[in-house]
Amino acid sequence: MSLIEPDGGVLVNLIVPEALRGAKIAEAQSLKSVTITEIDVQWVHVLSEGWASPLRGFMREREYLQALHFNCLRLPDGSVVNMSIPIVLAVSTEDKERLAKETAITLRKPSGEPLAILRNPEFYPHRKEERASRSFGTTHPGHPYIEIINASGDWLVGGDLAVLEPITYGDGLDHYRLSPADLRAEFARRGADAVYAFQLRNPIHNGHALLMTDTRERLLQRGYQNPILLLHPLGGWTKPDDVPTHVRMQQHDAVLDEGILDPETTVVAIFPSPMLYAGPTEVQWHAKARLNAGSNFYIVGRDPAGMKHPERLNAKGQSDDLYHPDHGQVVLQMAPGLEKLEILPFKVAAYDKKAGKMAFFDPSRAADFDFISGTQMRAYARNGQAPPDGFMGKKAWQVLVDFYRSA
Amino acid sequence: MSLIEPDGGVLVNLIVPEALRGAKIAEAQSLKSVTITEIDVQWVHVLSEGWASPLRGFMREREYLQALHFNCLRLPDGSVVNMSIPIVLAVSTEDKERLAKETAITLRKPSGEPLAILRNPEFYPHRKEERASRSFGTTHPGHPYIEIINASGDWLVGGDLAVLEPITYGDGLDHYRLSPADLRAEFARRGADAVYAFQLRNPIHNGHALLMTDTRERLLQRGYQNPILLLHPLGGWTKPDDVPTHVRMQQHDAVLDEGILDPETTVVAIFPSPMLYAGPTEVQWHAKARLNAGSNFYIVGRDPAGMKHPERLNAKGQSDDLYHPDHGQVVLQMAPGLEKLEILPFKVAAYDKKAGKMAFFDPSRAADFDFISGTQMRAYARNGQAPPDGFMGKKAWQVLVDFYRSA
Repeated sequence: MSLIEPDGGVLVNLIVPEALRGAKIAEAQSLKSVTITEIDVQWVHVLSEGWASPLRGFMREREYLQALHFNCLRLPDGSVVNMSIPIVLAVSTEDKERLAKETAITLRKPSGEPLAILRNPEFYPHRKEERASRSFGTTHPGHPYIEIINASGDWLVGGDLAVLEPITYGDGLDHYRLSPADLRAEFARRGADAVYAFQLRNPIHNGHALLMTDTRERLLQRGYQNPILLLHPLGGWTKPDDVPTHVRMQQHDAVLDEGILDPETTVVAIFPSPMLYAGPTEVQWHAKARLNAGSNFYIVGRDPAGMKHPERLNAKGQSDDLYHPDHGQVVLQMAPGLEKLEILPFKVAAYDKKAGKMAFFDPSRAADFDFISGTQMRAYARNGQAPPDGFMGKKAWQVLVDFYRSA
Repeated sequence: MSLIEPDGGVLVNLIVPEALRGAKIAEAQSLKSVTITEIDVQWVHVLSEGWASPLRGFMREREYLQALHFNCLRLPDGSVVNMSIPIVLAVSTEDKERLAKETAITLRKPSGEPLAILRNPEFYPHRKEERASRSFGTTHPGHPYIEIINASGDWLVGGDLAVLEPITYGDGLDHYRLSPADLRAEFARRGADAVYAFQLRNPIHNGHALLMTDTRERLLQRGYQNPILLLHPLGGWTKPDDVPTHVRMQQHDAVLDEGILDPETTVVAIFPSPMLYAGPTEVQWHAKARLNAGSNFYIVGRDPAGMKHPERLNAKGQSDDLYHPDHGQVVLQMAPGLEKLEILPFKVAAYDKKAGKMAFFDPSRAADFDFISGTQMRAYARNGQAPPDGFMGKKAWQVLVDFYRSA
């Protein structure tokens, strides 16, 4: 069930081959089962396609502890792979007691449908305070993913997964959900000699676009013939005030339609992971998953996977950033197990009022630049007000206006 | 200022050579200065003798972030050394503003005396919540070292140290404070072919002694001719309810006097580090420092560097352990950069009521064993009551009785 890649890396595939499907579904129906959450299903999706290779299922305790303490796993051959976040399944004490002696259990979707078989389950305590502390650098119960952790069961269960069929959502976006193997094949089909990935969970403005086209220029200057952009919005769970995936996909499509990004050199796909808002810890996961999907360059901006602290104020009395905005880039560049991925730190783009367009920020004439925050953008869209000319493509902007006015 | 070790490892020595001392003291007197705490002085001590090699001073931000996120540092040659705890110096915003433009600053002892020159200072924010979270797995303000962090300055300052002279305390215990270089020399003098280190911050009972003598037996059986025990109590800051260093040293001396441990094959020395109570994170530091001091085996017990959670109760309504008692051993055995140190997990010893002595716990006759807790031991000593015969050497026990009755 694994595919040996040209560079020797193994891309795990946990989806039951079609020939065995009937038998495995019958087995799943015969086993004791536990119903998991929508977010858990997204993690099963992530695991099933090998985004988290070499993981073969939800983490056992040794893997979990390595992720928490070292942000990487040591493999039996002594090599090190990056693995900064726990990918774990929480269950209640009641479920743990009911299932502790099983050699295999079935995971069911919230709808009740069997999703996967988890073999040789290993139950271990869900030490939530410690997990939150070490992953998020805070234990604040107002952090949106810590809230989810705190509401989940008191045990974790690790084990090898056999996923009964490819995971789809039937939301009209499944064609964007390319697996790492699909993406590698697509890059090969296009003859890419460099793949640079851009993770985002927000609408694309012209500053992002400038950054991506500039990256392509720099790669061409370095001698690459055919650099391909993996435009890779995160499509799993996000906090309620983020723009929903289907709106973002429409907005991204409009950006390509308008020619702001070149469809010839861009692959648009959805990254199925939930969002954690774990800053420097999470950006490693975002990068590692794209390495597994065939990228060799990763663009990283200011405060990746960051958010405002749920409580702390800065010196000006405003909500403080939860993470230091520079730490994501710095930590990512030092992270163990990502040596094959070149990290391209982001130049900051802002609206250049003099030039009337998004441009790289020039500190020598700071007063000419306007940083348009997400809050400001939402206010413009809600009020049907146009943002400064050149901030975003017109069709792309209209997608946001329609969303915010109907929301 | 560094000593190349036979295995190629560099043992950092930051103490100014005697010939230069006068000039450096004069320089220190001419520089702007900051007064540091007693605990900071202990960290300078640790750094000055190379316990934290290859660190050459208080951590700069890149080192600090690697310690927090990865528990290890990657060196320019690509190799990895373990470094699980931040060794940092906190200063106030006022001091930071006063000193930010200096190229060197003097660190003064609480008494005002110049202690060291810190060169090329790098000031960076002391993000206390994040530091506590990632190091301790909790942010609870009742944790004794987090209390110290929270009371300290809002900036950290990293930089290379030149320590003006060897650090001593004048407390009658300085002869026990052997540097890593001293210890390596002593092991060589004794012709050791194996050195096994035992960290402790508590009195030695006969269960500990059994463990140490049993380890020696096992090493002899494995073919070592002359295994030497490094009995290495921690001598830096500990929380107020721990037994003070001078009492523990008296107690350890009594154990050797009584022949419970063999002075011929034991080196008793003080490890100058402060205690953090950081469990699985700290046990790596304890092991790494002993590796630098020439050990090649490290004994690790249940719940190393652990304590009770300041608030959380367990299912029985008692104070819960802050860390899972098994995690220290498990994490230590997987820790990056400790490959040259063999970890010897501890067998649990308890008082065997049938045999009338401390013995390895035999779960098949659990009822025969009595686990004598620290609390129970203190109660015996305070009440002048004798512990079960064979629990601890008589002279050694008397040291504790004298301490608790006078305290």
